[in-house]
Amino acid sequence: MSFFWRARFDEDALDEALEYTAGGDIKIDEKLVLYDIIGTQAHNIMLFRIGLLKKDEIKSILKVLEDLKKEFREGKIQLRKEFEDVHLNIESLVTERAGRELGGKIHLARSRNDQVTLDIRMYMRDAIITLTEELINFSKTLLKLAEENYETLMPGYTHMQQAQPITLSHWCLSYVDALIRDLERLSQLYTRLNKNPLGAGALAGFTWSVNRNLTADLLGFEGVQENTLDVVSSRGEFEAELISILCILMIQASRIAEDIILWSTSEFNFIQLSDKYTTGSSIMPQKKNPDVAELIRGRAGRIIGELCSIMSVLKGLPTGYNRDFQETKRILFESVDTAIFSINILYKMLSTVKINREKMLKSVEDGYSTAVDISDLLVKKGLPFRTAYQVTGRLVNKLLKQGRKLKDLKANELSELVYSETSVKTDLTEKELQAVLNPLENIKRKNHLGGPAPSENIRMKNDRENKIREFEALTSEIKNFLKEKYDKLLEEVDRIICSP
Amino acid sequence: MSFFWRARFDEDALDEALEYTAGGDIKIDEKLVLYDIIGTQAHNIMLFRIGLLKKDEIKSILKVLEDLKKEFREGKIQLRKEFEDVHLNIESLVTERAGRELGGKIHLARSRNDQVTLDIRMYMRDAIITLTEELINFSKTLLKLAEENYETLMPGYTHMQQAQPITLSHWCLSYVDALIRDLERLSQLYTRLNKNPLGAGALAGFTWSVNRNLTADLLGFEGVQENTLDVVSSRGEFEAELISILCILMIQASRIAEDIILWSTSEFNFIQLSDKYTTGSSIMPQKKNPDVAELIRGRAGRIIGELCSIMSVLKGLPTGYNRDFQETKRILFESVDTAIFSINILYKMLSTVKINREKMLKSVEDGYSTAVDISDLLVKKGLPFRTAYQVTGRLVNKLLKQGRKLKDLKANELSELVYSETSVKTDLTEKELQAVLNPLENIKRKNHLGGPAPSENIRMKNDRENKIREFEALTSEIKNFLKEKYDKLLEEVDRIICSP
Amino acid sequence: MSFFWRARFDEDALDEALEYTAGGDIKIDEKLVLYDIIGTQAHNIMLFRIGLLKKDEIKSILKVLEDLKKEFREGKIQLRKEFEDVHLNIESLVTERAGRELGGKIHLARSRNDQVTLDIRMYMRDAIITLTEELINFSKTLLKLAEENYETLMPGYTHMQQAQPITLSHWCLSYVDALIRDLERLSQLYTRLNKNPLGAGALAGFTWSVNRNLTADLLGFEGVQENTLDVVSSRGEFEAELISILCILMIQASRIAEDIILWSTSEFNFIQLSDKYTTGSSIMPQKKNPDVAELIRGRAGRIIGELCSIMSVLKGLPTGYNRDFQETKRILFESVDTAIFSINILYKMLSTVKINREKMLKSVEDGYSTAVDISDLLVKKGLPFRTAYQVTGRLVNKLLKQGRKLKDLKANELSELVYSETSVKTDLTEKELQAVLNPLENIKRKNHLGGPAPSENIRMKNDRENKIREFEALTSEIKNFLKEKYDKLLEEVDRIICSP
Amino acid sequence: MSFFWRARFDEDALDEALEYTAGGDIKIDEKLVLYDIIGTQAHNIMLFRIGLLKKDEIKSILKVLEDLKKEFREGKIQLRKEFEDVHLNIESLVTERAGRELGGKIHLARSRNDQVTLDIRMYMRDAIITLTEELINFSKTLLKLAEENYETLMPGYTHMQQAQPITLSHWCLSYVDALIRDLERLSQLYTRLNKNPLGAGALAGFTWSVNRNLTADLLGFEGVQENTLDVVSSRGEFEAELISILCILMIQASRIAEDIILWSTSEFNFIQLSDKYTTGSSIMPQKKNPDVAELIRGRAGRIIGELCSIMSVLKGLPTGYNRDFQETKRILFESVDTAIFSINILYKMLSTVKINREKMLKSVEDGYSTAVDISDLLVKKGLPFRTAYQVTGRLVNKLLKQGRKLKDLKANELSELVYSETSVKTDLTEKELQAVLNPLENIKRKNHLGGPAPSENIRMKNDRENKIREFEALTSEIKNFLKEKYDKLLEEVDRIICSP
Repeated sequence: MSFFWRARFDEDALDEALEYTAGGDIKIDEKLVLYDIIGTQAHNIMLFRIGLLKKDEIKSILKVLEDLKKEFREGKIQLRKEFEDVHLNIESLVTERAGRELGGKIHLARSRNDQVTLDIRMYMRDAIITLTEELINFSKTLLKLAEENYETLMPGYTHMQQAQPITLSHWCLSYVDALIRDLERLSQLYTRLNKNPLGAGALAGFTWSVNRNLTADLLGFEGVQENTLDVVSSRGEFEAELISILCILMIQASRIAEDIILWSTSEFNFIQLSDKYTTGSSIMPQKKNPDVAELIRGRAGRIIGELCSIMSVLKGLPTGYNRDFQETKRILFESVDTAIFSINILYKMLSTVKINREKMLKSVEDGYSTAVDISDLLVKKGLPFRTAYQVTGRLVNKLLKQGRKLKDLKANELSELVYSETSVKTDLTEKELQAVLNPLENIKRKNHLGGPAPSENIRMKNDRENKIREFEALTSEIKNFLKEKYDKLLEEVDRIICSP
Repeated sequence: MSFFWRARFDEDALDEALEYTAGGDIKIDEKLVLYDIIGTQAHNIMLFRIGLLKKDEIKSILKVLEDLKKEFREGKIQLRKEFEDVHLNIESLVTERAGRELGGKIHLARSRNDQVTLDIRMYMRDAIITLTEELINFSKTLLKLAEENYETLMPGYTHMQQAQPITLSHWCLSYVDALIRDLERLSQLYTRLNKNPLGAGALAGFTWSVNRNLTADLLGFEGVQENTLDVVSSRGEFEAELISILCILMIQASRIAEDIILWSTSEFNFIQLSDKYTTGSSIMPQKKNPDVAELIRGRAGRIIGELCSIMSVLKGLPTGYNRDFQETKRILFESVDTAIFSINILYKMLSTVKINREKMLKSVEDGYSTAVDISDLLVKKGLPFRTAYQVTGRLVNKLLKQGRKLKDLKANELSELVYSETSVKTDLTEKELQAVLNPLENIKRKNHLGGPAPSENIRMKNDRENKIREFEALTSEIKNFLKEKYDKLLEEVDRIICSP
Repeated sequence: MSFFWRARFDEDALDEALEYTAGGDIKIDEKLVLYDIIGTQAHNIMLFRIGLLKKDEIKSILKVLEDLKKEFREGKIQLRKEFEDVHLNIESLVTERAGRELGGKIHLARSRNDQVTLDIRMYMRDAIITLTEELINFSKTLLKLAEENYETLMPGYTHMQQAQPITLSHWCLSYVDALIRDLERLSQLYTRLNKNPLGAGALAGFTWSVNRNLTADLLGFEGVQENTLDVVSSRGEFEAELISILCILMIQASRIAEDIILWSTSEFNFIQLSDKYTTGSSIMPQKKNPDVAELIRGRAGRIIGELCSIMSVLKGLPTGYNRDFQETKRILFESVDTAIFSINILYKMLSTVKINREKMLKSVEDGYSTAVDISDLLVKKGLPFRTAYQVTGRLVNKLLKQGRKLKDLKANELSELVYSETSVKTDLTEKELQAVLNPLENIKRKNHLGGPAPSENIRMKNDRENKIREFEALTSEIKNFLKEKYDKLLEEVDRIICSP
Repeated sequence: MSFFWRARFDEDALDEALEYTAGGDIKIDEKLVLYDIIGTQAHNIMLFRIGLLKKDEIKSILKVLEDLKKEFREGKIQLRKEFEDVHLNIESLVTERAGRELGGKIHLARSRNDQVTLDIRMYMRDAIITLTEELINFSKTLLKLAEENYETLMPGYTHMQQAQPITLSHWCLSYVDALIRDLERLSQLYTRLNKNPLGAGALAGFTWSVNRNLTADLLGFEGVQENTLDVVSSRGEFEAELISILCILMIQASRIAEDIILWSTSEFNFIQLSDKYTTGSSIMPQKKNPDVAELIRGRAGRIIGELCSIMSVLKGLPTGYNRDFQETKRILFESVDTAIFSINILYKMLSTVKINREKMLKSVEDGYSTAVDISDLLVKKGLPFRTAYQVTGRLVNKLLKQGRKLKDLKANELSELVYSETSVKTDLTEKELQAVLNPLENIKRKNHLGGPAPSENIRMKNDRENKIREFEALTSEIKNFLKEKYDKLLEEVDRIICSP
């Protein structure tokens, strides 16, 4: 019923163009307000130091900016569409309070091109820090679960078919290793992007003697992104790299979510989710739906699309600034918010899962997942690998037809089968066979480097715990560094404001 | 500075899960409120007709729903996250006002699975109608521009190199034909999706004798989407199809935008955009930046990502309902809003463009874009095609080296060149050559079916105008049909409410 | 070990550029050879009719082209990279055999831009016909399976949790309805793209009086794509539309594949795949891996990427021809081949599946999937819906704790529970309860339009069988039409060749 | 004409399934043959060392593998579809030559899951090395071009509008900085993925005491990817990361390509491409089409799709091995081949470009791109920034209307305008103004860190040259290391074969 459609197009043309270019964007820019104000403070202190602002000018400017910061934090400032973006909004507020002359001056030796890049760079630093903290929390949850389940046997799957026994601990630690790679990726990106873009101007720098090292220092950057054209043209590149990492991370999360969904079915019944993370049905009261896990999986799909969006937006643009870049902001913020929230809720959900150890064990015992080890046993007894493999295959088929399990197998039965198939006599003892058929005994012997044996998982768990602690220490260090830099900036602001 | 990051995760776990599953979604559901209320009215009238509701019950229910509709339109109703979605919000409001007993009954013989599908189906119908109207407006703008420029010569480009003369009219009409295909796609999709999903329940229908034809009729659907499992499982399919069409449409728009951006450069200088649709630079006062066109191009990139998102979300889901479907709503709404607004502003921008006809003509005359026609002329004079082609190539090279234009060429010079290269004597007259070299004369002779000749463009313009009128009539018809159906529903609601 | 990397870059620069532009492409062009030859025949007959070729010229040309067709079919012709593409390869072969003069003439009043579009258009027609035939076969397989399983009960899933009983027949028919929509999409696209592009030239048509209706008729097109610039600029648009449809289709296939994979697990154990469509493990002899289904799922992922590719390639290109278009060929052919093969193998695999009806039934009986119907029963007995829903919820919880199934429930027990919870006395009989708890009885009563009742599925099966027959007839008709047109073209070719 | 469609589906079902699962894949596996043989050698030496192979066994095995390596390099070995993949092909060849017993044994303590991961890991190492070398070559080409063009003025563009003067050198160096980031990304990925996966087995390791450090050492890995489940489940993750990097790289390349296309138009006319890298038109002899650049741009679009493919394939797969992984091989190889070839041809094309310095300079002089510097000059003379900006805006408008250029401006005229607009008297000298209006003088003053001044570009060029040399040294080191390891492996093979 088209008469319900909201008429958005009855404004005059000018307003429409503003709405199209800035309407949605201005809401998004909320995330950048504080970065923009702080960046402006640093920039203006630099202007003052190189003599482009006078003492009384910088005092007024910094004072107003401090006020704005406070008011914004208190929710008293709303960005207005008619000023297009966060940068002109802040400038207009300064103009309003400090006068037209000073309002104009704060933008001296700066362009919106380097300014927006600065704001986003600062946002991405924070995003990476928060992501890092959440991945550390996620890892700790998995390490704890691993610690509690060194001997919790479960089937490992290939092709979604039961393949070989593993332990829940081994499953947990496999994802810890994946997360450690994600942490490494994020850390390397942090270093790569933590360079000051300010001073690049529209794309060609300035005839002013801007001191880019000074603003870098004031804002906690490790160095400067030098070439001014590169600064402007590389807009979107770091964003695309971050979203790629988030995409890989969300795919890992989606696979954990898929396992959770499968394990929660009545068919698998390996785990029970806490009521907090499930919903019921509006008409099927018996359901416990793993909605959170399904949405993590779905949102992984959405982030794939965001990655595709940012790449498509950037492709084939001519060098320099193009307004298309604006779209990268929305894509970036959406992706970061989605990933952080998804990871956060995933590890919280995992930490409340109830594990049905008996059902897991029964699946291992009732299945045929130790068949490969029987095959290996036969090799140890002298059969060539492919022969042992074929004999075991026939054995399993025979048992399947008889409705028997592998655990029902006896040593002499096996020896006879081997003899009838290969004319090879094997000196197989019952004890040897049972060591293979008992899944825990079986797994304990897989204690080579990286194997699923409890002893090896204990070692790996301790090792990874240390690795995570290192990431934790590194993150604290970075946060302290940024905090110190910001405190110093505030001191400087204070000193200038209070100076005679 | 990570201390600026908004702490979202200090709520208790239950709230977090609710926030994760419903937090963003509930805002999105605003778009569905009216559809949900109207759908609920139709559903309850059906329940009344098949005897599941008593007279006084249906009276109360319809009364409350009418009130809610009014209050929502007046902005008095806000959806609340704690009721998860639009459906439970409406139900809770009915419960609040009509009591627990009735509030419960409105959901009888219905599930949220068929209900949300109904709401989205109604939304998509409206979206298609609005898109259709905007495409019609777009076409009319292009037809008008075509009408004004039958003889406005300009270079046609291949490989972004000037290739052959065309007219601006031919350019306009080429996009009208593309839009007519889009209109056809939308129209076919409308018919395909205009089927009633209500009555499918969670996926298996009901033991109640629901009358699905009745709700179809009340809500203006042409028939029922029958198989109940198909109704639930096909969630996202029509959405994906619509977004595919929008993607094709936005790519067409992005190519027009690219032309506008190119033509607005000082290098091309074919057009001048109205100030309304350009912005200046913060530090480069001479700039007239085609921001709107750039953003249309950028948003085409975003819609490609949305298409990729919805496909990735749906891929590999097991049959039935999966919560991942929820993500398709956001993707759909984003894509529809973006496409409608982009098209709307594009045709408005186009209608205010100032055309530099002299510059266009000069480009045609100074270039070598009639070379192919010289080649054809030589063929008419008896040279084999590839030979004529090679001779013309050498001619152009020679002129280029001499810094001369094709228009400076004389018949005898050409004849001599041909003779020296091929020993063929041609009886070329000056008049024949000038008919080729004069671009307007040249183009007038390209009057075969679909050719760029003004006469042919006049024919096509009139023909397409009729086609657009047919789409316009069809759209009116559909809107009237829906309006009549809705008026009848309102009458029925009134009759029941006012009945004794 | 980088010394293994094949050095491809030691050729001279010219060869490299040729390799980069034509190297991979020329292999792809194999698919277009016959279309190119036939298109060239039609084009040259047209040239002859409008007087641009003489009798002896057209005779020689058609003769050589007939020879080439034969030799190509016999595998005697290989396309050569140094002639760049299929078009120049054919032209060079004609030149070689009929002489430079005639070789040149066959390209008269034609450009590679309209020629390649023609070839691809003819390819897409065939692709759609083949896809249509495969979808018809797929539907028939599903209809047959539906017919055999009207009463084969199985759980229907929402959130991968058992929700309500359905039948395998209902599952099959839900996908038949999806396929019918795909068939409709393909059929509409066929009509849309079945227009003759030939005569558009490079983008601006010709000063020759080309007869585009004639070539349209000779080649079986229903009309002409008129505007010459639109013909060239719309390259990729129909391809993108086809791939969108294939993407939707492959997503449906991926969901069937996902069900097959799930149902084949030892946990579900609903079906057993034929050995033909599974593989074993290299070291785990007991495995029966559903590789084909997994690859269908994986290839759906690949087609999503192909869709994203073609859209990204086209976005933001200026109007006219751009060489980027070349990439669309590879994307198109890959997608079409993948989709056709995937559908073909999927229905063959489905037709050999062994269904474990007992296990399916046991899942229904042991689960709680009739709970919603108990709730409905209580409503019929007078409880408000939400109350009935809550009481049933408590009932299920109670049974779950007691380790009992719903089928163990007795009428008086239920009545007592209802009374204790709501103080409502219900006159529930044992017979009424059992009609709900017996899943077959239960489902038989869901016989409203589209419901899962066997009676309704029989009706739908017959109806869809007719619909499929209609598509079959339509496809035959189209094939016959094309065949007749081609036969007529051959006759014409013969007549000309043999004329004095 | 559907009768042309090649019937692929008349084989028997078994062959079809094989064709579907292995048909295309086996061709792709060619790239892995040598890696597979070498990996098998290392694995078997390890088996020998831990006592699972006897002296005479390892001798025969290594001998046959050496033969196969040689024969494969000579093109004598073709992979056969009926053996499914490269692994079983090699095994079958060993079986054929060394007998069933030994043929079986080479697969002992190994699964195809860890084997294929090993092969791909070795392939990716080589791919990264080759990519690194090509990026180094690309950088050198840009550095050389930069060195030759420190004072080659050209307009810098924002919104595709002339913005401010830059130099071609600055443009070149901006991309060198981008490539240095790409080199860093590749180098970090190399380190991350250079871990031995062998020994993970199907997913759960072995009861054999496999020595994973030994195979790591033999094959040049720096350590082991430990957790066996992680090894198998992370399939595709490193591939996705590499393709992300390639995607960013190809986007950079596409933007250079876009500039080349634009600069080659007759409208811009900044450069002339070498004939080697352009093509003519089949009917427009004057054209010099930048096909190579267009295809680079198009192929960037294709790689975006490949990235989307691999992410979509991986999303939501359950933990462990899934056959869907197979699709990642094709995606990886395609992307790597495309990127390497595109980069290679791009820098070769760039190195032959002819630069029209006069046209570039004229564009700068005729435009208004020094306007921002006039604005800055006025600020230096005491006007507030926004005021200076507005005055300059009005100045440019006035000149535009008068058809004058900025370079025609005189100091007194400017002073008067300023006075009339602002009542401010400025002591502007002619010399000061001309220093701004002369673009070279202008740009020489933009000599702050990263600015476009020649002096700064000389500094950056020297600095980046050193950085590139460091990457070059690092790459040599890695190649030598791998070569030494391989030589040592060959020695070991020799020693064993020749031992008594």
